[in-house]
Amino acid sequence: MVLIAPFEVTAWVDEHAHNVKHDLAGSVCAPLSIKDLIELSRQSDETRKALDFNLIDLDYNSPMQGGYKLRDNLAALYSIQAHGDRKHTVTRENILTCNAGIDANHIVLAALIGPTDHVICHYPTYQQLYEVPRSLGAEVSLWRSDPANGWKLDVGVLRSLVKHNTKMIILNVPQNPTGVIIPQWQLEEVVALARDRGIIVFCDEAFRPLFHGISSSHPDCPDSIVHLGYEKVVATGTMSKGFSLPGIRAGWIVSMDPQIVRDCFKMRYYTTTTVSQLNEAVASEALDDRCVHAILDRNLANCKSNVRAWQDFITEHEWACSWTQPIAGTTALVKFHRDGRPVDDVKLCLLAQEKADVCLIPGRKCFGDGVDFEGYVRIGVGLHPTRVREGLSKLAEFMKEDFSSVPCSSN
Amino acid sequence: MVLIAPFEVTAWVDEHAHNVKHDLAGSVCAPLSIKDLIELSRQSDETRKALDFNLIDLDYNSPMQGGYKLRDNLAALYSIQAHGDRKHTVTRENILTCNAGIDANHIVLAALIGPTDHVICHYPTYQQLYEVPRSLGAEVSLWRSDPANGWKLDVGVLRSLVKHNTKMIILNVPQNPTGVIIPQWQLEEVVALARDRGIIVFCDEAFRPLFHGISSSHPDCPDSIVHLGYEKVVATGTMSKGFSLPGIRAGWIVSMDPQIVRDCFKMRYYTTTTVSQLNEAVASEALDDRCVHAILDRNLANCKSNVRAWQDFITEHEWACSWTQPIAGTTALVKFHRDGRPVDDVKLCLLAQEKADVCLIPGRKCFGDGVDFEGYVRIGVGLHPTRVREGLSKLAEFMKEDFSSVPCSSN
Repeated sequence: MVLIAPFEVTAWVDEHAHNVKHDLAGSVCAPLSIKDLIELSRQSDETRKALDFNLIDLDYNSPMQGGYKLRDNLAALYSIQAHGDRKHTVTRENILTCNAGIDANHIVLAALIGPTDHVICHYPTYQQLYEVPRSLGAEVSLWRSDPANGWKLDVGVLRSLVKHNTKMIILNVPQNPTGVIIPQWQLEEVVALARDRGIIVFCDEAFRPLFHGISSSHPDCPDSIVHLGYEKVVATGTMSKGFSLPGIRAGWIVSMDPQIVRDCFKMRYYTTTTVSQLNEAVASEALDDRCVHAILDRNLANCKSNVRAWQDFITEHEWACSWTQPIAGTTALVKFHRDGRPVDDVKLCLLAQEKADVCLIPGRKCFGDGVDFEGYVRIGVGLHPTRVREGLSKLAEFMKEDFSSVPCSSN
Repeated sequence: MVLIAPFEVTAWVDEHAHNVKHDLAGSVCAPLSIKDLIELSRQSDETRKALDFNLIDLDYNSPMQGGYKLRDNLAALYSIQAHGDRKHTVTRENILTCNAGIDANHIVLAALIGPTDHVICHYPTYQQLYEVPRSLGAEVSLWRSDPANGWKLDVGVLRSLVKHNTKMIILNVPQNPTGVIIPQWQLEEVVALARDRGIIVFCDEAFRPLFHGISSSHPDCPDSIVHLGYEKVVATGTMSKGFSLPGIRAGWIVSMDPQIVRDCFKMRYYTTTTVSQLNEAVASEALDDRCVHAILDRNLANCKSNVRAWQDFITEHEWACSWTQPIAGTTALVKFHRDGRPVDDVKLCLLAQEKADVCLIPGRKCFGDGVDFEGYVRIGVGLHPTRVREGLSKLAEFMKEDFSSVPCSSN
């Protein structure tokens, strides 16, 4: 018997997203090829050279912590993203490369959490973030955001959840699945609370720096947790979402606390050893100054276009749909209701697939522990805009012809 | 505090192997580049085409379990390796791809072992295999091989270690660090014992199919554990050792038990999601019939040449060294003694690095829990033969000039 609950969202995607014509649910930004990277680079010849792997001896990556070029490019990325007066200097020594965000998150949790610990996790969120601590024997409290109020959080509630053995507060900014942020002022309140008690703050930042509905210079736009002036923080990131490269499995851990870096590195020897040289080479180049801006500009434009398309769809179907419009990341939750009651999320998704060849992700099943978020489905706003519009027109047909046969939730 | 002991061998390699001129310890077969793969292929044009990644959309690998081509090539590899009348049919459904052997082993253990379990682990071996079960809260018994008798094992001892809650017997064939095998007849005894009690047999086969000192048709030469006619078995493998591609981080889990495959797949969602498309493409091609034989022929020839070079060295220094000559895999343990007493393994390795720019791995520290295998060092026999001979000539100088200053073990 496996001592961890099924990972619902990944299992759903694996079973439903591959053979479907219209993927409206995926959380990636439309993937790039190596040819695309060469074409979008400001110095295509340099990029082509950097991505010619033929002569590399495919030995273990050296040093094991991650190649210098990738870690230096990541350090630069963190440094330019910080609000001016709060900027901290991230260096390669703060960073461990990993096999994408899933590996990075797993290492952080396995390294830092044990059976006698209590952790508090932002909710709803990516299931890994609370299920892995549970499987490690820790007690998990969920810090619930309010679906009726734009998924807002209350730091007073967080304070009431803290126990004597609270080891970690786990956040996810921008948040999957809601597409909202924790504003900078509130992040500062969380950090102040954590600092008072010596609690580690771990922020899954897989969807940074995709702020498509808020200017990155807006005072509410959150810095990376590593820039909040508190040492006991750890962030994770990935090339899979905002950087359009899920196929290379490259991610990272960054912390301002040398002890956290050492602890994660120690665990990483048991799970990862090193990251592929090929994957690190592609990641390094994509994050190079000559490529990274074009990638992010493309993806932010795609997100904006897709959010508009979804907003049009929701306005047109307001008799059946509502949402909190996402402002960051690539995902959002859309609520479907019929006769004033939420629909059965799983049956809606299965029927949409059967009738319209559309993939949606059931929110209660995949983000609500089977209990919360009745009627919600997760959708993706980072995909190719033309494909999203095609999918939405199929979904509009489905709403006209088949939605009335979706049962309401029986809960 | 991290709840797992330091991973000594990886930490040692990371600290000592990168900046040293003569690596005599590494466990890989001399790494290949993509250019090398194209040159050694029987159909270079096809291989070049298969390794041209430029147009691949770098999306998540699909299906998540692993690409069809890689899993089919792996299935074929297992099928041709089986002794004729014991052959079982491995198909893609039996296989999960992973980020190298470290990820594969970690997933198997995390999926199948919990706090109330007892496991028995072959010893000495790769530290991950007993340390991860310990960190998961399981009780671990070590099934010790006899250094005075060619690292032989006794199934009677194994039987005496079994408890009512023994969940798994963990083997490592060919074995790291000793370079020996469990002969087929004894593997059959282990499987018979496990079958009687319903115990899972997990065999780390990272070093298959490198049988350089025994013919693969010899009746003692062990089949993969998946071919022993018992369903509750699981094996792991990697491209990092016998296939010369540690830089791509590709490995796999294979089991004849659909439930074990499902359990591992379920855990893999939390640690891995999918494997890099680039890495799977290189692995698939290297395992293709047009490449794989040339790779293995090259590596077996290198191992044989290096074993001869080490045997010459040991014969020449029999006043200070002895070993059990390895017959499989890429590693061996060499015992160093002075005045009839084993030397301090760590001090020997540090002094050899300082004086001769040679990397060796201390056996007691990295494979003996700091207690066993006094005076042993682990060496590698899969490396470039010219580099091994250069390193050995430096080590011979060291033996003449500096060995006398290595202290004996104080244990």
